[in-house]
Amino acid sequence: MNAILSHRSIRKFKDTPIDESLLNDILHAGSRASTTGNMQVYSIIVTKDQSIKEQLLPCHFGQGMVTQAPVVLTFCADFNRFNKWCLQRNAVPGYDNFLSFITAATDALLAAQNVCIAAEDKGLGICYLGTTTYTADKIIEILKLPKGVVPITTVVVGYPDEKPELTDRLPLAAILHREIYQEYSEGDIDQIYAAREVLPQTKILLEENKKETLAQIFTDNRYSKKDNVAFSKVLLDVLHKQGFMNNDM
Amino acid sequence: MNAILSHRSIRKFKDTPIDESLLNDILHAGSRASTTGNMQVYSIIVTKDQSIKEQLLPCHFGQGMVTQAPVVLTFCADFNRFNKWCLQRNAVPGYDNFLSFITAATDALLAAQNVCIAAEDKGLGICYLGTTTYTADKIIEILKLPKGVVPITTVVVGYPDEKPELTDRLPLAAILHREIYQEYSEGDIDQIYAAREVLPQTKILLEENKKETLAQIFTDNRYSKKDNVAFSKVLLDVLHKQGFMNNDM
Repeated sequence: MNAILSHRSIRKFKDTPIDESLLNDILHAGSRASTTGNMQVYSIIVTKDQSIKEQLLPCHFGQGMVTQAPVVLTFCADFNRFNKWCLQRNAVPGYDNFLSFITAATDALLAAQNVCIAAEDKGLGICYLGTTTYTADKIIEILKLPKGVVPITTVVVGYPDEKPELTDRLPLAAILHREIYQEYSEGDIDQIYAAREVLPQTKILLEENKKETLAQIFTDNRYSKKDNVAFSKVLLDVLHKQGFMNNDM
Repeated sequence: MNAILSHRSIRKFKDTPIDESLLNDILHAGSRASTTGNMQVYSIIVTKDQSIKEQLLPCHFGQGMVTQAPVVLTFCADFNRFNKWCLQRNAVPGYDNFLSFITAATDALLAAQNVCIAAEDKGLGICYLGTTTYTADKIIEILKLPKGVVPITTVVVGYPDEKPELTDRLPLAAILHREIYQEYSEGDIDQIYAAREVLPQTKILLEENKKETLAQIFTDNRYSKKDNVAFSKVLLDVLHKQGFMNNDM
């Protein structure tokens, strides 16, 4: 619980390597996560080799922690292993469709979060890299992911060389809905985002980016429609190529 | 760490309700999970009302724990709140595409796993319901989810009224790949699934289902191509209807 409540993303790591048995412990914690029907349709690529991390670096938009962190974990939706087992056991797998991709991605993400909490519990720091789905096509090439395997998220792990403040969050009530969905009024929205909008770092951001509102920094700079549309095409193309879009009998 | 390692899915719950402040604590733990760009594009529907749980029951294929557990949590990908904020702040949201759905689903799943670990740490039991994506269309109607919101997973929570054995897992090495993906040989697959195939419960399953191999129980009974294709259509249709498939500028 303490590890959960004190989570902060770490983007600066010490040179200290992670002991192999410690790494094994946190990956084992990942394997204890719930998975659909206990199929465990995910894989974790454990990359330590500096030259491979350097190949991955542009996939993660050059974020320095990819080469600086001792370990890079790429969590993948993976029906390849399960399909091979079915075929070797006189069973015909039907997992080349969109639902199966979502099932496998879910397995991968729950395992990832277990690994992160276990790592933080052991004094390590982590950061998720959302760039994984944006450049899934290139990551597939670098990590030699076969058909049936799609990278979903990446986590860098190492000993923290910084101690950032806890990140702010929206008021808990803002993300909760009692019994059924409670639609937000204009006033609700104003109230939910008010504290975030008056933070000192928000003012700095607005000046730096010459923007009128914090929301514009998201829509115009960080997560623009143009980028989202381009990355959507990449990801859907990857799903086709990796064999997850055969949605007919 | 202890909560992670001793996780088992709970399907029988005591009548004991969950204290509101305890429930609040575990939901707060959910809100501390990493989210893309701290956008927090997810929502949690907290359902306790028996009549709504009864409406949800068929969506989860009649699994008794839906009505028996004191609390049902439906985790949703949610760009509705964020979009409303953008529109009220003179910003044009570009989150009606597939990438944005994956981003929001990821936020929802990482928060879900935090909630589950926090719940187990506090002595509660949980079970994930994979049925959520199969019947997302019906859950949207029942929980009145607006455009921009898609249910991703459901977790039932309560005090355990059973203590099942720890579920078996594949050997850890089977889901790990060093540096890059290591393709499985026929021998690898035999070895990976060997222990699971000789479990006493596997033998019982094979006799009950009159099947030759464990894999056939998955492909023919539990997760058939016919079902997967039908559920893929439902889910893709939901993504269109909820406004996540506008993948052009």
